[in-house]
Amino acid sequence: MLVDKIEEIAGILMKYHHFIITSHTNLDGDALGSELALYFMLQQLHKDVIIINQDPIPYIYTFLPGISEIVCYEDLEENYFLNINPDTVLITLDSSNLERIGTISQNIDTVKLIVNIDHHPSNTNFGHLNYIDASSSSVGEIVLQLGQALECKLTEQIATALYTAIITDTGSFRFANTGVKTFYSTFLLVKAGAKPHLIANHIYANQKLSGLKLLSDALQKLQVDPVSKLSWTVVTRDMIERNSAKDEETEGIADKILSIKDIQVSAFFRETSEGKTKISFRSKGEFNVDHFSRIFGGGGHPNAAGCQLEGNINDIVSKVITALKRATLILNKGK
Amino acid sequence: MLVDKIEEIAGILMKYHHFIITSHTNLDGDALGSELALYFMLQQLHKDVIIINQDPIPYIYTFLPGISEIVCYEDLEENYFLNINPDTVLITLDSSNLERIGTISQNIDTVKLIVNIDHHPSNTNFGHLNYIDASSSSVGEIVLQLGQALECKLTEQIATALYTAIITDTGSFRFANTGVKTFYSTFLLVKAGAKPHLIANHIYANQKLSGLKLLSDALQKLQVDPVSKLSWTVVTRDMIERNSAKDEETEGIADKILSIKDIQVSAFFRETSEGKTKISFRSKGEFNVDHFSRIFGGGGHPNAAGCQLEGNINDIVSKVITALKRATLILNKGK
Repeated sequence: MLVDKIEEIAGILMKYHHFIITSHTNLDGDALGSELALYFMLQQLHKDVIIINQDPIPYIYTFLPGISEIVCYEDLEENYFLNINPDTVLITLDSSNLERIGTISQNIDTVKLIVNIDHHPSNTNFGHLNYIDASSSSVGEIVLQLGQALECKLTEQIATALYTAIITDTGSFRFANTGVKTFYSTFLLVKAGAKPHLIANHIYANQKLSGLKLLSDALQKLQVDPVSKLSWTVVTRDMIERNSAKDEETEGIADKILSIKDIQVSAFFRETSEGKTKISFRSKGEFNVDHFSRIFGGGGHPNAAGCQLEGNINDIVSKVITALKRATLILNKGK
Repeated sequence: MLVDKIEEIAGILMKYHHFIITSHTNLDGDALGSELALYFMLQQLHKDVIIINQDPIPYIYTFLPGISEIVCYEDLEENYFLNINPDTVLITLDSSNLERIGTISQNIDTVKLIVNIDHHPSNTNFGHLNYIDASSSSVGEIVLQLGQALECKLTEQIATALYTAIITDTGSFRFANTGVKTFYSTFLLVKAGAKPHLIANHIYANQKLSGLKLLSDALQKLQVDPVSKLSWTVVTRDMIERNSAKDEETEGIADKILSIKDIQVSAFFRETSEGKTKISFRSKGEFNVDHFSRIFGGGGHPNAAGCQLEGNINDIVSKVITALKRATLILNKGK
């Protein structure tokens, strides 16, 4: 069932008592902020609610109020899902398809209802109820509206969680999804007690020296093709290990290499600890990296998407950049 | 005369007909955005108005509507100020003292009135009228209120100029000056037609490859002192020339090196083309870099300030870092 009004979804949530909230693997600020805000809202309504994620919390988000309440899937007792209340509702946030929530998706036959709340245009409407608003900068913006429909009090905790969701998914208000609704939402959140400076410090001023040295190395390897308006760079395991860095410290490199004048599309290649290559695409203008990354089995948003490939990293760079050059050529010719 | 209500200043501006708007040397987004917005507002009121700055426009701001109307001091005809209308009002924006507007300050004996509008707490109230609001993120926020008091229409041009003022002075909503009023202001500006994504692209995604390579080099030289919670780095003429970069491409390095976890204060040393050393201080917490930089004849805001010193750059780094360590030690001991 597709739901097109936030009041409808609020009405349905009101009827149930037991909730599991989850989100996608590789947790980000929108996933965690939206989960925690909805968790506090449902608690205000005296509901029985738990957040379960497949992946652990990245360190930059450990400041979030309530973060220690989040349960990691592997810490659940065996048969947890077999023993849940038969009326339990699973709410998935920010997940464009059911597989994105990870192995949890293979254990949810016992839930009564799946409520799928998302802002990805590529969402597959996998839930029993699907509220997809691609005009929202973030799921955080949707959860704010949901809280209003549920008549919840906008506490400082909720405001902090939702501000984190919005600031991370808009790249601190720099991405194309930043609109009038975004600023009205953040106005309400800051009025309710969210502290922009302190939240921004946790997210953007919490880098390790190793992360900045790794950025420096990645920028040394930066390449541009002015004809195709492309930029790209690579971070290998060797570079990560040489700087004693962690994989999560590569966060931000994908955006940084798009910051060059006249460059329209960028690709950031990172070798994973399993020897695969994770690619983050970014674009400034019309080039739809969501569509492009689907060629390689990935997806995301029109201006930020990704995929993961197996094979030799140099071969992958060569293959993907060739494909990108061809795709941007078609777009540029069409003008 | 100190003016404490925006309506009072609006009332005074209404009475006059001839205006010169100016701002500080080393023009930034708040200076230019506020100047242009006020220029368009006074034009709506059919006033005779001109913007004159000492310095040329940095390239990242050339997208601003009306930017080509701005006159550079050296392009004025000789005796320009001697021949102005005797009732001309000079409005200085974002300048904490009269010297900050540069050589223009030595030529304004013929103006009738100086109206000083600023948000620096260190403002010396040098005008005949002084409206200083240190609670505003930017002069842009003040000019928005002034426009409302003048009953001007908030056009897309004005909104774009003021959004630029706010985004640059808040570091894209990350600095401590970002508050409820900031988000309410940007909500109004975006509603009036400012395009957050496009403006952010001009300011943050308009770097040259040379600038990113220079950042990479600066990060290689990055040093931290965990005890004093300090970080610092240096950009010499040699580094600028080796990367074929311009001085303005060092913009952003000062903020970047403060982004390290637990670092509270940072100093960025840049060798100028005149062989001096320009120092940009940043801080996250209580450490007041405005006060600290005044020791060396500089100034600014509590979390962002600067100064300029003569002598050997290595000696200057050594002297300033020693002083910073001492100052942070006193602050940390006091806790």
